[in-house]
Amino acid sequence: MTDRPPTPMLDRVAVPADLKQLTDRQLRQLADELRAETISAVSVTGGHLGAGLGVVELTVALHAVWDAPRDKIIWDVGHQCYPHKILTGRRDRIRTLRQEGGLSGFTKRSESPYDPFGAAHSSTSISAALGFAAARDLGGDPGDAIAVIGDGSMSAGMAFEAMNNAGHLKKRLFIILNDNEMSIAPPVGALSAHLSRLYAGAPFQDLKQVAKGAVSFLPEPLQEGAKRAKDMLKGLAVGGTLFESLGISYVGPIDGHDLDQLLPVLRTVKARARGPMLVHVLTKKGKGYAPAERARDKGHATAKFDVLTGKQVKAPSNAPSYTRVFAQSLIREAEGDGKIVAITAAMPDGTGLDLFAERFPARCFDVGIAEQHAVTFAAGLAAGGMKPFCALYSTFLQRGYDQVVHDVAIQRLPVRFAIDRAGLVGADGATHAGAFDVAFLANLPGMVVMAAADEAELVHMVATAAAHDDGPIAFRFPRGNGTGVDMPARGVPLELGRGRVLREGGRVALLSFGTRLAEVLKAAESLAARGIAPTVADARFAKPLDRDLILRLAREHEALITIEEGAVGGFGSHVAQLLADEGVFDRGLKFRSMVLPDIFIDQASPEAMYRIAGMDAPQIEAKVLRLLDVAVVGRRA
Amino acid sequence: MTDRPPTPMLDRVAVPADLKQLTDRQLRQLADELRAETISAVSVTGGHLGAGLGVVELTVALHAVWDAPRDKIIWDVGHQCYPHKILTGRRDRIRTLRQEGGLSGFTKRSESPYDPFGAAHSSTSISAALGFAAARDLGGDPGDAIAVIGDGSMSAGMAFEAMNNAGHLKKRLFIILNDNEMSIAPPVGALSAHLSRLYAGAPFQDLKQVAKGAVSFLPEPLQEGAKRAKDMLKGLAVGGTLFESLGISYVGPIDGHDLDQLLPVLRTVKARARGPMLVHVLTKKGKGYAPAERARDKGHATAKFDVLTGKQVKAPSNAPSYTRVFAQSLIREAEGDGKIVAITAAMPDGTGLDLFAERFPARCFDVGIAEQHAVTFAAGLAAGGMKPFCALYSTFLQRGYDQVVHDVAIQRLPVRFAIDRAGLVGADGATHAGAFDVAFLANLPGMVVMAAADEAELVHMVATAAAHDDGPIAFRFPRGNGTGVDMPARGVPLELGRGRVLREGGRVALLSFGTRLAEVLKAAESLAARGIAPTVADARFAKPLDRDLILRLAREHEALITIEEGAVGGFGSHVAQLLADEGVFDRGLKFRSMVLPDIFIDQASPEAMYRIAGMDAPQIEAKVLRLLDVAVVGRRA
Repeated sequence: MTDRPPTPMLDRVAVPADLKQLTDRQLRQLADELRAETISAVSVTGGHLGAGLGVVELTVALHAVWDAPRDKIIWDVGHQCYPHKILTGRRDRIRTLRQEGGLSGFTKRSESPYDPFGAAHSSTSISAALGFAAARDLGGDPGDAIAVIGDGSMSAGMAFEAMNNAGHLKKRLFIILNDNEMSIAPPVGALSAHLSRLYAGAPFQDLKQVAKGAVSFLPEPLQEGAKRAKDMLKGLAVGGTLFESLGISYVGPIDGHDLDQLLPVLRTVKARARGPMLVHVLTKKGKGYAPAERARDKGHATAKFDVLTGKQVKAPSNAPSYTRVFAQSLIREAEGDGKIVAITAAMPDGTGLDLFAERFPARCFDVGIAEQHAVTFAAGLAAGGMKPFCALYSTFLQRGYDQVVHDVAIQRLPVRFAIDRAGLVGADGATHAGAFDVAFLANLPGMVVMAAADEAELVHMVATAAAHDDGPIAFRFPRGNGTGVDMPARGVPLELGRGRVLREGGRVALLSFGTRLAEVLKAAESLAARGIAPTVADARFAKPLDRDLILRLAREHEALITIEEGAVGGFGSHVAQLLADEGVFDRGLKFRSMVLPDIFIDQASPEAMYRIAGMDAPQIEAKVLRLLDVAVVGRRA
Repeated sequence: MTDRPPTPMLDRVAVPADLKQLTDRQLRQLADELRAETISAVSVTGGHLGAGLGVVELTVALHAVWDAPRDKIIWDVGHQCYPHKILTGRRDRIRTLRQEGGLSGFTKRSESPYDPFGAAHSSTSISAALGFAAARDLGGDPGDAIAVIGDGSMSAGMAFEAMNNAGHLKKRLFIILNDNEMSIAPPVGALSAHLSRLYAGAPFQDLKQVAKGAVSFLPEPLQEGAKRAKDMLKGLAVGGTLFESLGISYVGPIDGHDLDQLLPVLRTVKARARGPMLVHVLTKKGKGYAPAERARDKGHATAKFDVLTGKQVKAPSNAPSYTRVFAQSLIREAEGDGKIVAITAAMPDGTGLDLFAERFPARCFDVGIAEQHAVTFAAGLAAGGMKPFCALYSTFLQRGYDQVVHDVAIQRLPVRFAIDRAGLVGADGATHAGAFDVAFLANLPGMVVMAAADEAELVHMVATAAAHDDGPIAFRFPRGNGTGVDMPARGVPLELGRGRVLREGGRVALLSFGTRLAEVLKAAESLAARGIAPTVADARFAKPLDRDLILRLAREHEALITIEEGAVGGFGSHVAQLLADEGVFDRGLKFRSMVLPDIFIDQASPEAMYRIAGMDAPQIEAKVLRLLDVAVVGRRA
């Protein structure tokens, strides 16, 4: 257990309104204590540390200047919201972050009125803030709308769409650009270079005086005199900014760790702004905690750690992570095939493509937080004769869905989708669950959809995707570590639409799609011990289905149960469609499709989430027993 | 039949290479003839006229300067590709545009090697072109990549994502910004104002000389001396452009109807460019055809017409269009409820919201081509206390899918989705089919999903959505006209999850979801005449399902058939899941789910497309007869 830091000033703050009683000097002390409390809390829970440390002063300044919850402070992504949670009545639960039953690791409307708009995916905040501003001006909820968005999030097209609309509507709206030159990975886009040029022309030391002095002279209304005021604040003339091109007034850059700059600038823009205004704030991710500042990812996401040393406590694993297996398999394929290229959307570490990029720097493309572009860029690469692997999390592939349909599937281009974080993901909760990809991919004509049952299967699926050049193909795999199976020396392409039978039995067939197979096998063991040995098969493919296998299982068994880590509409639905079409239901079959339940499941361990979903071995077993009408003393669910 | 215009120069062009033999003077004549031929062709077929007329000279210039198909000319959206098709070996079929078995109304890889990347949805061209450029530089297909994109398409975040990546990768790449101040509707975003400022500073007449003279002095390499050259081309200094902020060299604006400007500028940039370069070309939509130039939509989409008068030939209809019914119903609801607001993404006419905007200008938001923003902006409006109706085509809602999941469904915000063009859409073909929305919406927890069976039902569904304030709700309706049913004086909210029975029968129950109901009723009539009167029900809801109705139909009939205008994974799959869960299949049921087939269906009339899909009345009847094992002489399918 880590000692709690002394926090006399923070202890006086129950809600943000309490900040109004503090002097600027006291606010500075508050910020220091808030930083210490954040570090202490995350050392116990693990989580997103670096982003929160980067906005400690900004969090204090926003709450000191504006009046939440009347004013809506909207944190983009939400990785950086822990200090905000501490200041908004949730300090007593801050050491439950990301735990089952505890605080969410992101902002969440249902958790607090101080979270006016929840997040977890990036780049939504300006759209949401503009919605609040438009609602306010039509007689809806009053108050200011303030979007706090990182430079990485700005690279997403959605943020551009929102700014384009904001500049047009001209509503009073605040965009705080939290520029730490770092989203999850170092930034890669041209926008990032543009921002660098902006602050290259106006370093902190000059600005400090400018900010202190100039803001009091900001003309009223700001819009009309905007040019002069902005030139002053920008210090050295750096020319038009991208934001001004879009009709958004620009102020900055200012030092985001200096309350002497933050407070007067924010007070002034709050007092004077009429239309949309962007305040460019420079921060350092991981600020004020040496181990985070030193780390390559600036303490982006961390396990529990020792506060003094920064050393993280991680449970050892005997099996490699699926992500790593994917990356290593792809490297092996790419060693033998110069046409293989890889695309990630700002997640080189998360997808394992950092390893691929080390080996093949020219053949790896990090396009920034830009899934729409990532998919169509991959389609262009395929049309140009390459073999692109587009590696995304399931939940983020939702951002590029139209592009999958319109640019890839309709054109039958051989883009390979490596879908990480399929199924329930644990501490990141409902927003990151990969629940819908099988449903939204498997009904696309010409698409091949696979799910790996274990890490060895994943190796073969990478090889299958590399070899498949007649249209798009997707393979999904979960977060976390494999099962520890023997690994093949190298991948061998699978026959399309062929599953495999792992054990033959009678009465009931369990047909798994994905990594629930391990639980299915456990359930099968237990059932066998009861004298009801089931057949267990791994479908491997949701599309094309293994018709022969499925119809044989239906024919030879009294009951057939499918199980998958996805929502209804996916694998089980395709099996049901086949069984119906073939008239199997006409003569009766105990068919069940185990899918994720019709609820968004809050964060917990993946195991706990699958228990809640009704998908662990005991529940699979219970399902079989009920279906076969076998009485189970004391356990009938 | 319209007389064909004389086209002696055009007759000499079989493929683009033939343009290399022509003098600039001859190219001007070619452009005039190409315009006449385009007008003549569209007068026969109907289609997108205005966009093509606006790029006649640009099409000639691009093909004269570059070498397609080695060089990849990628037309964004594709509305403007008819002149390109005429020049690229498809002139003999140009009068089959958008007809069954004829040329697509868009670019299409499978149609011609001169269409390197098909389109129909907007804003994909820069991503695709960058993919080609990156493939080329890695040893893939050689040649230049040229994206031709309109100012409206530029407002989509996807285009921004692509430019941000292009400015970073610095690959040789051409972006031709076809700026006609008009996408489908007048432009609405701040970007459009930025572009206006660019050309306000540099009118044509000055530029003409600048372009003629200056381009020959463009320094080599262009990148290094870019600033001076660009300043010259820009004429009056207009400050930094948004494109330059993103690392893309900017040239322009130039007169897109003047080959004396287009040819030298394009030749020069082709000769000198190293990195990404944008050429800003000003055009007029509908140029050169007075009826189109006069029209409010600049001849965007037209029925067949008389070339001399421009008068369009439209088949009269006795029933109102679904789009109009939606708009009028929403206006009626909004008259009684000041919280109702509407959002469209650059489709005010297509969604009927132009009518709403006339009545309630302050309560209607056209956000530009920006579906991601549209959805989350609507979510923000809902969080701010309004009742937003987000009106999109089914196929374009795919662009905002992640936002539906993450910002609307997870937060259970009451955004109303009015989904137009659900199902097969006719002449626009596979790219515009609304095939997947039921599948990708109905598995989202808390979402309500309805489909209108006729225009009266649509009125009630608008009322249902207006009244539903506990979470998101969607209702879908097709392109085209209603069935002519009696219209209610006003909408009455439906009970959630309650279907309706239209006729009671025996043996077989037909459960329809959407406007296939009319065909189902026809089939039922015919079946009744054979002595097999079926039960016919309209489910109204895919979510929540009418469990009682469905289980009763299953219980009381030998067979149950669902039918919907969507792909597998949608309504029928949810019904199958219910029937499986309830054990209905255990004891046998002839269950079938009629869904769109697993192919992308090319353009034809909607009726023909549904015939291809196996979903017209005769095929529904045949399905029933087969299922009941009734022999039908000479018709067993």
